[in-house]
Amino acid sequence: MKQLALIGAGRIGEIHAANAAAHPDLRLSLVVDPLADAARQVAQDTGARVASLDEALADPAIDGVIVASATDTHLDYAVRAHAAGKAVFCEKPIDMDLARARAAAERLKGARLFLGFNRRFDPSFQALKAKLAAGAVGALETLQITSNDPGPPPIDYVEVSGGLFKDMAIHDFDMARWLLGEEPVEVFAWGSCLVDPAIGEAGDIDTARTLLKTASGKLCVIANSRRSGFGYDQRIEAYGESGMVRADNVTESTVQVWSEAGAQADRFRNFFLDRYKDAYRAEMAHFAHILSGQAQPTVGYADGVAALALAEAAAESLRTGRPVRLD
Amino acid sequence: MKQLALIGAGRIGEIHAANAAAHPDLRLSLVVDPLADAARQVAQDTGARVASLDEALADPAIDGVIVASATDTHLDYAVRAHAAGKAVFCEKPIDMDLARARAAAERLKGARLFLGFNRRFDPSFQALKAKLAAGAVGALETLQITSNDPGPPPIDYVEVSGGLFKDMAIHDFDMARWLLGEEPVEVFAWGSCLVDPAIGEAGDIDTARTLLKTASGKLCVIANSRRSGFGYDQRIEAYGESGMVRADNVTESTVQVWSEAGAQADRFRNFFLDRYKDAYRAEMAHFAHILSGQAQPTVGYADGVAALALAEAAAESLRTGRPVRLD
Amino acid sequence: MKQLALIGAGRIGEIHAANAAAHPDLRLSLVVDPLADAARQVAQDTGARVASLDEALADPAIDGVIVASATDTHLDYAVRAHAAGKAVFCEKPIDMDLARARAAAERLKGARLFLGFNRRFDPSFQALKAKLAAGAVGALETLQITSNDPGPPPIDYVEVSGGLFKDMAIHDFDMARWLLGEEPVEVFAWGSCLVDPAIGEAGDIDTARTLLKTASGKLCVIANSRRSGFGYDQRIEAYGESGMVRADNVTESTVQVWSEAGAQADRFRNFFLDRYKDAYRAEMAHFAHILSGQAQPTVGYADGVAALALAEAAAESLRTGRPVRLD
Amino acid sequence: MKQLALIGAGRIGEIHAANAAAHPDLRLSLVVDPLADAARQVAQDTGARVASLDEALADPAIDGVIVASATDTHLDYAVRAHAAGKAVFCEKPIDMDLARARAAAERLKGARLFLGFNRRFDPSFQALKAKLAAGAVGALETLQITSNDPGPPPIDYVEVSGGLFKDMAIHDFDMARWLLGEEPVEVFAWGSCLVDPAIGEAGDIDTARTLLKTASGKLCVIANSRRSGFGYDQRIEAYGESGMVRADNVTESTVQVWSEAGAQADRFRNFFLDRYKDAYRAEMAHFAHILSGQAQPTVGYADGVAALALAEAAAESLRTGRPVRLD
Repeated sequence: MKQLALIGAGRIGEIHAANAAAHPDLRLSLVVDPLADAARQVAQDTGARVASLDEALADPAIDGVIVASATDTHLDYAVRAHAAGKAVFCEKPIDMDLARARAAAERLKGARLFLGFNRRFDPSFQALKAKLAAGAVGALETLQITSNDPGPPPIDYVEVSGGLFKDMAIHDFDMARWLLGEEPVEVFAWGSCLVDPAIGEAGDIDTARTLLKTASGKLCVIANSRRSGFGYDQRIEAYGESGMVRADNVTESTVQVWSEAGAQADRFRNFFLDRYKDAYRAEMAHFAHILSGQAQPTVGYADGVAALALAEAAAESLRTGRPVRLD
Repeated sequence: MKQLALIGAGRIGEIHAANAAAHPDLRLSLVVDPLADAARQVAQDTGARVASLDEALADPAIDGVIVASATDTHLDYAVRAHAAGKAVFCEKPIDMDLARARAAAERLKGARLFLGFNRRFDPSFQALKAKLAAGAVGALETLQITSNDPGPPPIDYVEVSGGLFKDMAIHDFDMARWLLGEEPVEVFAWGSCLVDPAIGEAGDIDTARTLLKTASGKLCVIANSRRSGFGYDQRIEAYGESGMVRADNVTESTVQVWSEAGAQADRFRNFFLDRYKDAYRAEMAHFAHILSGQAQPTVGYADGVAALALAEAAAESLRTGRPVRLD
Repeated sequence: MKQLALIGAGRIGEIHAANAAAHPDLRLSLVVDPLADAARQVAQDTGARVASLDEALADPAIDGVIVASATDTHLDYAVRAHAAGKAVFCEKPIDMDLARARAAAERLKGARLFLGFNRRFDPSFQALKAKLAAGAVGALETLQITSNDPGPPPIDYVEVSGGLFKDMAIHDFDMARWLLGEEPVEVFAWGSCLVDPAIGEAGDIDTARTLLKTASGKLCVIANSRRSGFGYDQRIEAYGESGMVRADNVTESTVQVWSEAGAQADRFRNFFLDRYKDAYRAEMAHFAHILSGQAQPTVGYADGVAALALAEAAAESLRTGRPVRLD
Repeated sequence: MKQLALIGAGRIGEIHAANAAAHPDLRLSLVVDPLADAARQVAQDTGARVASLDEALADPAIDGVIVASATDTHLDYAVRAHAAGKAVFCEKPIDMDLARARAAAERLKGARLFLGFNRRFDPSFQALKAKLAAGAVGALETLQITSNDPGPPPIDYVEVSGGLFKDMAIHDFDMARWLLGEEPVEVFAWGSCLVDPAIGEAGDIDTARTLLKTASGKLCVIANSRRSGFGYDQRIEAYGESGMVRADNVTESTVQVWSEAGAQADRFRNFFLDRYKDAYRAEMAHFAHILSGQAQPTVGYADGVAALALAEAAAESLRTGRPVRLD
């Protein structure tokens, strides 16, 4: 039974807490959050107790630390947890600033750091990758990643989000790297503000189309919007030499109603807590394997930096109107 | 160029007329109908001329006769056309009365008689049969035939229709024989009047479930309703040793609308003129092949009698509440 | 925190044990099984301890008992657990013998007995029922229940199974009752042995088509086979006045491979542990609500008896070749 | 009955000839082609006769001319047919050279010129446009056009094709203009040679991703490949304020085979003659309406020029690596 401390008892922290508590090989022992009420609630729901950060990092019984706090603390807490000898399950993104993220390389050397890019653990995306790996369509050539939120976030969230590329497309940059099998070497992005003018006034965009190119000429399109109008829209099409593999959206159930208007399928799962609940569970199972020594992190610090580099390149391309080459 | 006469210028006659006129190897020359206006209209639309029945049968230029007149004349006109040396494309059913239909056997001996069971010519049902023939699921074991009309016909039609089994399920009995690869030897049917009480008052049912069994124990369910509420519902599921082949309903287009309610597909094709327009065209192509000697009728008089025998057995089962064995 | 005892540590007992252990309001305290190893394994996996039946029933800390033992013990253990003042979560079927099941009525009077017909808790079937309840297609008229296993069980299982109707179709009889909104009053069944001759030699069938009729004339078809060849086939079509609601099979993922052969979807979930894992979890949540007094059992003893009566009627119909009326 | 002359008896000419011959209000009278055998064959199949170009244009009985000859003759023949007072049904593209196409403006003033962009007449794309027009998803914001050929053409075709953008994507540029409801003002394109190195050696690409932007910020992605590996891949997704409308690929039939591998749908229609056969028929019906004065061409010379301008801009963007603004 490995013991865990959770740093950050917000929405995503609660999910990790529940998954840790339900895992047969893990025990959530400590919950850390400056908001005492939040910490107490999560602790109570999971049989853990509230602790301070220092207490948690100093506790020799704690094997692993889940970093689910505010984004600008991810890097610092990950470094400190690693320094304290803990394995780290760090929420994405690794940081908002590429230079700062890169600067932490030395301090994170040798860290058992698992970065929570949840989509890599989604059953459908994993099945897609497995099909590619099994050669179902030959060598991959192009990729279409569609990633639209159900509706736009509040403006005060947008203002501190780091912008669409770092906040939202960061997942898609990671998926592109995971699937392309080659690093993107060039990025081009266009963005518009079509959903909510307030997003534009906040200096951000709500709609983007980003192209990635690899050295061998593989092309990837990332389509993002802050509002699909029909739920969480998370799809991938991967084209190979002899066909295409696709992963589609998930519906609430298999029910259809057939009427004079035609066949109506059930609603699409609305947002990430719902769409990726199995993925979050699978992330925790992976962390349990890391803690037991059965697995190395399949996605870590370097992946977080690489996704961030793509996000910054996309933002630069949007600003300059030119393609941007990655170093 | 083979020349045809059409007997019966009603709704189905019009379709056959148009298909004959458009076929490169056929010419529709004569149209026969006691309703002069109907005959004139069809003749005008297709470049044919109006004629009397005797004239048409006596005309040595006429190679084939399409019998699309009232059901109770099918048998008589088929017999007379055959006697006049013509090939016959006779609409289903062969007759409403099994004894009378059987009694015509001698007079139709050697007839080039093609009975228009249109569903055998539907591309999806043909593809289903081809999959079975190719062994896609091994030997066929059970069959589910779903056949629901979009809405009930007028009561005055119901009153002269011969009842649900002869009017509607007759197609399904033919499909069952075509696909089972063995003759049904026993029939059981239940029926209800759930759609329109007036249908019950007319002595008919509007909803039925009919079971067929073959000598080797293959089972077939036929599900019928006079009203689906969502368009023409024509589906088949064929279960074999290693899986299932199904043919689904056809939609107006491939368009879907994705909204908060989920994915809405386009309307189902509403009724037989629409759903089976390709099948009617393929029927005429088959008749052209019969006329040119390239093909023998793939479905004829004996099939019409066999389907009628199943319909009468189903009606008897409904009346007696018992399974009925076929001779 | 309500405390539970589990009687029966076999395959289904394990599932209930894990779900009980993971539920925030329940604690699995005791595990009872004559097979000491099985009991010990489940106890160890869930933090419970092994106990004898008498011990479990006598323990005042135990609020509820899960009966997941051999079928012929369900009724007896349910009666004893009720006599001991426990709420009961009893696996289906209530018993194999209708007369015996009926005879227990008095002893189970007032019992908080929840009968585990898992399909009622499947998200897709619940969504289907909710659509019907919301009037999505008007009043229900007919029902098509398709329920095929992936492949036949071993012959030694078949021999003690009670036959296809009690072992397999019992679920479908319950679904029919749950959805029809009216009791079936008449049953007709045909069965064949098409999958494995050894099943026939064991006096059973492996393929059946069963018709149910209600007093108002609603019709239901139940289609069963011991072997679909494509995985677990659990589908329902419910036809109403203005359309149809259907619940389809569940696939492993949303992934499709598009190749020259067409679009290939992912595998269907293979069997009940997989297909109904969410249903089993929902059952346990319902039992938690029963224990806390928030809910009455939505399905209980009377439903178990009614389903068994339909199964016996179907078996009688198969034997006699006649429809069978229910009292 | 309007009389037509066909210029060009190749593959696409044959299709238009057959559709003209089958249309009740049109007669194909003359066929013009320097290849005498081709002209004779088409004439024979349709009951037309062979003529010279001068003869056809001088014949006062001819109401309309179908220009289906080599691409570099489209513009010249359209001009001459218009000068002769004929209505013109001109195959796409209007020309390979934008400057030359623009230079013909004066000579085509007042022409009844219908440019055959067939996809505008596809039932599914028309249904998609109708949904947008009906406000099914609110105002259009972004567009995804997927257009992949089943496999690459022969290299000698590639060499004279004008390149992927003019030969293949020209259709997609027209679809974008048709659906966006606003002219694109900027184009960015990336291309690769991933399918066949010989295409690269011929100076062309076989894979492209092109972005279009309108003045209001609407974004459109066009995805092209010379080889899908699974048939003709022609799909559109149109995102609006409140959802998405999509048109999918068309399969050969509705048949599916369910096996242990999952559900396998039927093959996708393989190429344009098959996929767009209804569209070609609808084009001819539209031309009949133009000839009878019931309709003005819905797509004509100006659309041909505009699509060509986008193709040239895309090619320039590919060459320069920069976005290209349209005048």
